[in-house]
Amino acid sequence: LEVELISIGDEIITGSTIDTNTSYIARKLIEIGLQVTYKSSVGDDIKKMEEAFYHSLKRADIIITTGGLGPTDDDLTKRAIVRVFKRNLVFHEDILENLKKRFAARGIDMPAINQNQALLPQGAAFFPNRIGSAVGIVISEEGKIFISMPGVPGEMKIMTDEELIPYLEANVKREYLKVIMLRTTGIIESALAEKIKPLVKLSESLKLAYLPSYGGVDLRIISRGLSQEMADELAERLADQIRKTIGKYIFAEGDKTLEDAVGQLLIDRNETVAVAESCTAGMLAGKITEVPGSSSYFERGAVAYSNRSKTELLGVPEKIIEGFGAVSMETAEAMADGIRAKSGTDYGVAITGIAGPEGGTRDKPVGTVFIAVSSHKGITSRLFRLSNDRQANRNRAVYAALEMLRRVILEIK
Amino acid sequence: LEVELISIGDEIITGSTIDTNTSYIARKLIEIGLQVTYKSSVGDDIKKMEEAFYHSLKRADIIITTGGLGPTDDDLTKRAIVRVFKRNLVFHEDILENLKKRFAARGIDMPAINQNQALLPQGAAFFPNRIGSAVGIVISEEGKIFISMPGVPGEMKIMTDEELIPYLEANVKREYLKVIMLRTTGIIESALAEKIKPLVKLSESLKLAYLPSYGGVDLRIISRGLSQEMADELAERLADQIRKTIGKYIFAEGDKTLEDAVGQLLIDRNETVAVAESCTAGMLAGKITEVPGSSSYFERGAVAYSNRSKTELLGVPEKIIEGFGAVSMETAEAMADGIRAKSGTDYGVAITGIAGPEGGTRDKPVGTVFIAVSSHKGITSRLFRLSNDRQANRNRAVYAALEMLRRVILEIK
Repeated sequence: LEVELISIGDEIITGSTIDTNTSYIARKLIEIGLQVTYKSSVGDDIKKMEEAFYHSLKRADIIITTGGLGPTDDDLTKRAIVRVFKRNLVFHEDILENLKKRFAARGIDMPAINQNQALLPQGAAFFPNRIGSAVGIVISEEGKIFISMPGVPGEMKIMTDEELIPYLEANVKREYLKVIMLRTTGIIESALAEKIKPLVKLSESLKLAYLPSYGGVDLRIISRGLSQEMADELAERLADQIRKTIGKYIFAEGDKTLEDAVGQLLIDRNETVAVAESCTAGMLAGKITEVPGSSSYFERGAVAYSNRSKTELLGVPEKIIEGFGAVSMETAEAMADGIRAKSGTDYGVAITGIAGPEGGTRDKPVGTVFIAVSSHKGITSRLFRLSNDRQANRNRAVYAALEMLRRVILEIK
Repeated sequence: LEVELISIGDEIITGSTIDTNTSYIARKLIEIGLQVTYKSSVGDDIKKMEEAFYHSLKRADIIITTGGLGPTDDDLTKRAIVRVFKRNLVFHEDILENLKKRFAARGIDMPAINQNQALLPQGAAFFPNRIGSAVGIVISEEGKIFISMPGVPGEMKIMTDEELIPYLEANVKREYLKVIMLRTTGIIESALAEKIKPLVKLSESLKLAYLPSYGGVDLRIISRGLSQEMADELAERLADQIRKTIGKYIFAEGDKTLEDAVGQLLIDRNETVAVAESCTAGMLAGKITEVPGSSSYFERGAVAYSNRSKTELLGVPEKIIEGFGAVSMETAEAMADGIRAKSGTDYGVAITGIAGPEGGTRDKPVGTVFIAVSSHKGITSRLFRLSNDRQANRNRAVYAALEMLRRVILEIK
């Protein structure tokens, strides 16, 4: 079965919005054994949309579009569907009633323009939209399934989870597929490849991909088999070999993130953490608390941007800042000890650095970052030399700090 | 001129990575009058890559690919290029020397696998890679330009800015195009459309798009003309009408973000800000400090996740937390006053809320967020009722807080 995802909108084609929708859908599809083969995007141009829909109906069996279902003039998906499938639009009273209720609940008068959203192509089924105004459209014809969902990420996600996936599970015969994701950190892609390559005999039915990101490199195994058991076995055999060879770099498997993994370690040990940040300025605290339930182990954070705040919030002695600089191993260690002492947590993590673009010196160029972890086991600190890119440096520093905390908790050298 | 962007990699097709590269490139291209018409993605599958390259050479004049140039086995872009353009690979001594130097500077032995990266298709030019190991590949043939760049976002960005854009400016005849972006906040898409629709006569040469995001709705005008002057005039005329009608919702124009706009207001007034966060836990501080130079107006942040830390860090009286709850207007106001008093800044901004998925009650369901801004002008506070989605709630609260701060600074009601 060939699956094509089409994202629609000038905002995507012109790059003013990043398309996160098709990634989300692809990830959910692979979990039910449907692998996306084609992905494409078109702008808000009805002719290009028609072209794209025709092309997709030729090469794919399941087509899923996102975007272009809103009430404003540039939302043309429905009109393109009507032309391609040669159907009329039919008014749905129940959809309009629901819309009116939604606006009333928010205390807003429904702009008349929203009435368009109660029109659907004749013979189409629809996916309800629990949090927004545009319903999903489902057309099943001549063995092809064509589905259009709204482009607002929150709406698309809920609709994918609650409507799309159950619909496809019920209506599509799928492949036997197994996906295993091994998430590594602390080792670069080419070094990983040199260690793993001798182990692996890849084929059409067994694929291994290296997926680098700020947090590390993910290894994704995808296998296919004549039965689910065969696919499972093929993937598991390779995963085991990799686990044996580079196991210490693997911090989690599957969807679990580094912040999830660290959170779980703290929960298991009934321990707590607080953080002190300078150049990352809250991003580490923000990342740790992306995990639901993190309030059970995350106590507080201090964003000590000014020197004065480093002294006031964290008790960093002024003479350390004067003697070694606000960006130094000594300051990082004093920040980590300070936040741990003030908050009474088991671990204190501190980051100080020069994110850029300004502030670099000969000795401490942009990208210089010191990270320290304080605990009853003592203090661990490290210098990182990152890049010239402000936001990349801040992101990398956050993940490096999480990884250092993980190692201190697990007592890995 | 038709432009196609192709992003390559299983990580994109399977959704484990979000493709930010093509958005970046599209945004840069539009600034030099090149509008992307087609965007597509293929996995690490050499046949599908060849298909995609052939198809793009048929329908587009300029093709830009990202990804698949790394040293590992799944990086197949170069092999697909060689097949499609029927060329051999040629070894470039200078590229290898550069690579060796790069690894030496980082104190790492170059894995032998990286030698592949010194091979280029015969007759191809290349874009140097200042921060990574894969160079860009440039083939110009029969009026078509085919360019491949690495997929690592940091490398792709620098190569786009320093190599791709200058190359295209020098080698391509472009359209006369004008883009104006008006960024609004505090009004929903359909309400905006109702106000703007009567003003606008759109056509093939004048387009208006509504681009909603967490921060608000962007209005993007794109015009075309027979000369640059005509394109400019067409776009400016519409922009002026829109500015007159809904000007108070426009916080910035162009690439400028809400955090940029607020930062500029503070710099202009020589004023400072500090923040106190509970449910957003550092994300507001992180957002404010995305702006280079923000240290001149951002003093500190307190991530007061536990009740104890709200009292210790911000001086919120225990009886307020006990009487009204940690998530209440009273607590938000006490947090904002507290951080302003402790830090001595002109403004104190506080956020407390229930991000979810747990912690909601009948009176204060998930999505309930209180935001307060304290200044010498007094205190302003507001209740927001957001959604069920933890991360969306946190993002929206950050932008809502920035928007409230903007209004307090400008004394807009």
